[in-house]
Amino acid sequence: MGNKVLVLSVGTNPLPNYVVGSYLKEKYDKFVLIYSEENQRINQNGTGNFAKKLKEHLNLNDKYVFLPLSDVSDSKQIRKDLNSLFPNDNFEEIHLNYTGGTKTMVLHIYNFLREKFKNKFKGSYLDARDYKLVYDDSENTINLKDTVKIDINTLLSIHLYETIQFECYDTYSYKQKFMDSFNEMSQRIENAIMDNKGEDFIKWLENPFRKIFKGGDKLLEKVAKFKEHIKLLKDNNSSPIVKFNKETPKFIWDILNAFPEGKKLNDGQELWIPDDKITNDNLSSRVKDTVEFLDGKWLEWYVYKQIKSELLDRKLKEGEHFGLSLKAQKKDSPDFELDIFLINGYQLIGISLTTSSKKDLCKLKGFEVIHRARQIGGDESKAILITGMDKSKTEDLQNDLAYETGSTQKRFVVFGIDDWGDIGSKICKEVFE
Amino acid sequence: MGNKVLVLSVGTNPLPNYVVGSYLKEKYDKFVLIYSEENQRINQNGTGNFAKKLKEHLNLNDKYVFLPLSDVSDSKQIRKDLNSLFPNDNFEEIHLNYTGGTKTMVLHIYNFLREKFKNKFKGSYLDARDYKLVYDDSENTINLKDTVKIDINTLLSIHLYETIQFECYDTYSYKQKFMDSFNEMSQRIENAIMDNKGEDFIKWLENPFRKIFKGGDKLLEKVAKFKEHIKLLKDNNSSPIVKFNKETPKFIWDILNAFPEGKKLNDGQELWIPDDKITNDNLSSRVKDTVEFLDGKWLEWYVYKQIKSELLDRKLKEGEHFGLSLKAQKKDSPDFELDIFLINGYQLIGISLTTSSKKDLCKLKGFEVIHRARQIGGDESKAILITGMDKSKTEDLQNDLAYETGSTQKRFVVFGIDDWGDIGSKICKEVFE
Repeated sequence: MGNKVLVLSVGTNPLPNYVVGSYLKEKYDKFVLIYSEENQRINQNGTGNFAKKLKEHLNLNDKYVFLPLSDVSDSKQIRKDLNSLFPNDNFEEIHLNYTGGTKTMVLHIYNFLREKFKNKFKGSYLDARDYKLVYDDSENTINLKDTVKIDINTLLSIHLYETIQFECYDTYSYKQKFMDSFNEMSQRIENAIMDNKGEDFIKWLENPFRKIFKGGDKLLEKVAKFKEHIKLLKDNNSSPIVKFNKETPKFIWDILNAFPEGKKLNDGQELWIPDDKITNDNLSSRVKDTVEFLDGKWLEWYVYKQIKSELLDRKLKEGEHFGLSLKAQKKDSPDFELDIFLINGYQLIGISLTTSSKKDLCKLKGFEVIHRARQIGGDESKAILITGMDKSKTEDLQNDLAYETGSTQKRFVVFGIDDWGDIGSKICKEVFE
Repeated sequence: MGNKVLVLSVGTNPLPNYVVGSYLKEKYDKFVLIYSEENQRINQNGTGNFAKKLKEHLNLNDKYVFLPLSDVSDSKQIRKDLNSLFPNDNFEEIHLNYTGGTKTMVLHIYNFLREKFKNKFKGSYLDARDYKLVYDDSENTINLKDTVKIDINTLLSIHLYETIQFECYDTYSYKQKFMDSFNEMSQRIENAIMDNKGEDFIKWLENPFRKIFKGGDKLLEKVAKFKEHIKLLKDNNSSPIVKFNKETPKFIWDILNAFPEGKKLNDGQELWIPDDKITNDNLSSRVKDTVEFLDGKWLEWYVYKQIKSELLDRKLKEGEHFGLSLKAQKKDSPDFELDIFLINGYQLIGISLTTSSKKDLCKLKGFEVIHRARQIGGDESKAILITGMDKSKTEDLQNDLAYETGSTQKRFVVFGIDDWGDIGSKICKEVFE
């Protein structure tokens, strides 16, 4: 067995273990990964699967020992387990990084090792506030944020996610769906936002667009259902259909006309109404992708385009450190989703987008993105929510949510419609400054 | 200075300190409260205000020492501060309860005291999983849940809330608003739920009730605005007004007719429409309270009534351990609100209610109540969300939210409309079994 040993306490967030392990790997001959055994009887979650994934992603080969603790709340049991399982060689150095694990677990591991190995023992901690590795016995601290990098696949894999999907710029699925028309469509939307027409656009999306095309299950898959829905809307005096035909602004007609011929929502200067020969398949192939894109995907694409080149300039790699439409799955858990992800060093930035200006919906999206970013990025992570709200409301929401979730301002930002014009530089400022 | 000292590490949740302090108070001559000093430069939040409140609520008089730490991430600085500030008397016993504070803070306080006081030192921890006080050096654990009680005012006060308001059964504000009619109104709603008419009732609330009476700022305060709104609704073929007049079920007419004469939404078997002589004040005094009560307050009252007697039977005191419409304020923070609160021993149970069956809104309410319960009740707390959803959806929401917020099933429960009939016993089962 090797002479210098790095001991990691593995809790429910394996990221600090991975970061410290990557940084120190070359300096140590052996890793001891201490984790808690699953035990339903005492309500204890197991962290052994995280230890296994760490071993794999740190490429420890045979340079490791797994050490399970049977009850991490019981100091005597912790000592007993360590006594019988901790390797008994004549080590030159024992270094415990105690960032992971519970307070009791860490305290008793620390004291066991210090008593056993005396002056060969040292302790360290990775501080989430400033990304610094702090040694107990030295004034030197090392900032690991710029030193250790992690890619999205590894980050999700150490959190036990198995299936991981996301999209990239060149192969973006809507490019395939709209072929040659995609660039012009998205360019016209971009122009509208740059011309400060974002607010008019989201008003139009709210009504008439969503009133006509959203609502009910399979509305866009069943011709009969869609025609019935249109008929009901027609009977209404303040009808969204009249609004679509008569009040759609010119810049929106330009956007609508940029969609490919077989996927247009309009027929000339009017709403397209399916005739009697249209099949269910015809209907959905014509409108479904277009409705999805206009309903919100355009904003995801727009924001992604605005940040992409700056991220590349900063040597982040697309597909490793940033991407869009992220979805990951693991056993017995809801899916993990982020509209846009970005990893700066080992800090995860989760970005969620909504065109809505409704407080309730924006607050829900805020809770979701804060939790998702923390779930895999830990206390170091940051969440960014981009909404259609105006400035006064974004500030309130940011304060409310930061307070309720115990985030600091640094860790959670809400942007509103006034920020859309230069959203790329605003996001980069939040991430890199 | 006293001979037996209890040392508490004070973090951002003072509840475990209060619980342990209350339990052990008589056995110790002196308390040392160790907290972190506020320091913006190193991003450190201060916990000194919690220490002050603990001193006050534990009635420590002059039996205490405050000990501030200048940097809780720096082991050397922690030792330095302890060296210069920890009382130097000849103590008989030093007992550190290390439940509060950060991992580094606790680790270095523990080791400092153990080295300094050797076999006079002992350590303990309050386990949030099972409410047990666990001593490092003894097999005995003591369950404090049934031993230590805290009331809502103390709980909020140790969290620095200053203004605290809530309601109780006898003095419930809607009793005053509806006077003699209140009992019959609420009884008729209760009967409807017991008769399995809850679903019909919430459908009617969605449409026509909310379509008519909700929407827009000051709708119920400006006659002109309200009349314009009614006029627009009338023009609609599937008008909520027609629905109100023609399709309101008998049991709902019975409820509407139970409201006092000057506060009825109906005029005989039709919707009341304000005539031209009505002033703004007339309008709001007639409909505002009634709309508020029907919009959702009735559910709060109904649930409260169902649990009240069982809580009294279990020796919980109204106004101390349970109550409704809780609202508390402190400086520089959003208000703290809970529809119903309940404290069993020192476990806070936060209850949030919505008649909605919409997934997004229910999820938002779920996030809010989980965070609020944890905010003052810590990891021991429990959140209960009562919704208008059906069974299949409540299970999904419970799993999603528990997963996303890292709660266990034990700590978060969602009830749906099928649970309303026996909600009192269902809540008590969750709380007491």
